Amino acid sequence: MAARIGRRTVRFDRPPSVAAWASVAGKQEAAGPLGPLFDRTTQDTTFGCDTWEQAESTLVGQTVALLLEKSGHAAAEIDCIFAGDLLNQCIASSFGLRALGIPVFGLYSACSTISEGITLASLLVESGAANLAAAAASSHFCAAERQYRSPLEYGGVRPPTSQWTATACGALLFAPNEKPPYVRAVTFPMIEDLGVTDQNNMGAAMAPAAAATLLQFFSDTGLAPADFDAVITGDLGAVGSELLLALAEREGLLLLDRHQDCGKLLFDRDRQDVHAGGSGAGCSAAVLAANFLPALAEGSLQNVLFLATGALLSTTSVQQGESIPAIAHLAWLSHETGGGL
Amino acid sequence: MAARIGRRTVRFDRPPSVAAWASVAGKQEAAGPLGPLFDRTTQDTTFGCDTWEQAESTLVGQTVALLLEKSGHAAAEIDCIFAGDLLNQCIASSFGLRALGIPVFGLYSACSTISEGITLASLLVESGAANLAAAAASSHFCAAERQYRSPLEYGGVRPPTSQWTATACGALLFAPNEKPPYVRAVTFPMIEDLGVTDQNNMGAAMAPAAAATLLQFFSDTGLAPADFDAVITGDLGAVGSELLLALAEREGLLLLDRHQDCGKLLFDRDRQDVHAGGSGAGCSAAVLAANFLPALAEGSLQNVLFLATGALLSTTSVQQGESIPAIAHLAWLSHETGGGL
Repeated sequence: MAARIGRRTVRFDRPPSVAAWASVAGKQEAAGPLGPLFDRTTQDTTFGCDTWEQAESTLVGQTVALLLEKSGHAAAEIDCIFAGDLLNQCIASSFGLRALGIPVFGLYSACSTISEGITLASLLVESGAANLAAAAASSHFCAAERQYRSPLEYGGVRPPTSQWTATACGALLFAPNEKPPYVRAVTFPMIEDLGVTDQNNMGAAMAPAAAATLLQFFSDTGLAPADFDAVITGDLGAVGSELLLALAEREGLLLLDRHQDCGKLLFDRDRQDVHAGGSGAGCSAAVLAANFLPALAEGSLQNVLFLATGALLSTTSVQQGESIPAIAHLAWLSHETGGGL
Repeated sequence: MAARIGRRTVRFDRPPSVAAWASVAGKQEAAGPLGPLFDRTTQDTTFGCDTWEQAESTLVGQTVALLLEKSGHAAAEIDCIFAGDLLNQCIASSFGLRALGIPVFGLYSACSTISEGITLASLLVESGAANLAAAAASSHFCAAERQYRSPLEYGGVRPPTSQWTATACGALLFAPNEKPPYVRAVTFPMIEDLGVTDQNNMGAAMAPAAAATLLQFFSDTGLAPADFDAVITGDLGAVGSELLLALAEREGLLLLDRHQDCGKLLFDRDRQDVHAGGSGAGCSAAVLAANFLPALAEGSLQNVLFLATGALLSTTSVQQGESIPAIAHLAWLSHETGGGL
């Protein structure tokens, strides 16, 4: 059964398993430090399609098909998939999944999508509403650039605080308690908005959301950062990561060397022209699948907190002078079903 | 406990209650046949804001605040809200909810959003993951027109198959089994795409999704349309409703006078210039809250199937010549917790 603890955390008595995972990434990501860890990378970021949006849909479809292949399950066995992306009306997910024959729950949580999907898929599996439930999140650099900023051909100059939207998709499959990694608990997030208006500094907009959810988790559970091998944020990048550490420290939480950020891990900022690091809904999803889940499965990581962070802006909200609300769904992923902590 | 029956339906042994509901609608909706039934209507569809997008955010915030007021619960008691809308990156929901102090799960399912929210909120309440969970969906005619079609000032002519996006928001609160109406079962939807490409005929694009989910529900449960007082679709409008009846009849399902469509109910098509009827994520949400939930609470309706339908297109997908995928999440709403059927 799911048990609510504290204000906003749900702890699982029989933690569901992350039964399989898959990651597919693009050219820039293949050239980064995690390149060899992705299940598949491509040098052709069009994925053989005529448009960037169709390319991202194809990326989603390929990643979920690979998830099925790796899991040994047929599409007809999957009770539902939670999926979302950054494109207007989430067309990457809808078009990418329309032919797969899996019931779809569409999400919008910007770059926090994979964490929202982990939360909902594991809640449904644990309650028996689903036997097998999946979650996926994607992004594509070229599709995101032209939608959010300007067409690539324009050659806009990016400020140092800006991040590089990953061309990547990560997909996870959840099953009843069978083998590690397990989802031990999830924390429901509030929307946080400290008034940041610079759309070229999304790390700064998202850091308060990450800090707020982390503080809530530790307050709800009585646990501390020292109880975890890593506290992994989605895509705060270099600027947002520093802010998170500062915000957390102000509240007495010392994350320090335990903190890792998928946006920082994805690229080599000295060698690759990505400014503050990677971002995009696919960034944290693919890095989780490629880098962290295998370590949690084999036990080289025992307990981590994973919280992808999302900036809930649109080009319209920015043009209208609005600040950037942000959100961070959190999941506690573990090699163990209980004990220890 | 939730029990899976058939391929894609979840039946609740202890059906959660729809504990409260609220609806707020605009000027055109106030002038329609359901005008007197909404909790609140306004003649000022700017909601006192400078932009249509901010107006829709304000509409969402007002509706959820009214839901809290009607329910007698404080925001701090609500464990989460599932919310979504039609604007790019769902800014109506994110900005409308950011100050309310309720954890948010962002959804994107176009005009099927309220049904997706009913499904997820009731699943979480029934499993104990949430004690009180809400769902909301909104749309705003002026914000949708300029995003999807052309600015109002352009005065574009609309074909007869087109629908009128409702300026409306509906919000529902779910609580453990206590009083009617109850959510007895939900059916998970597939994305359906029969190749319709006319964005001015979304009813046609969505009818196959409604038919497919209905057929699945009846197949999973062994029930028939005669077991229900009404089969209520979201916003198929006049064109889509006829298609649904024909598609269902081809499969041996006679819906006939049991079928009602929120898009047809919202406006008086003889008197109001709305062509094929109402649409928008707020249409079905507000019509459900204003028209159907009170009848289910008092017992003048005993059992209904409610399935809001969503067209998963974007302006980009249309410009790229893509067809329109559609989806329909289904919930069985009842005056009774069991028996009868």
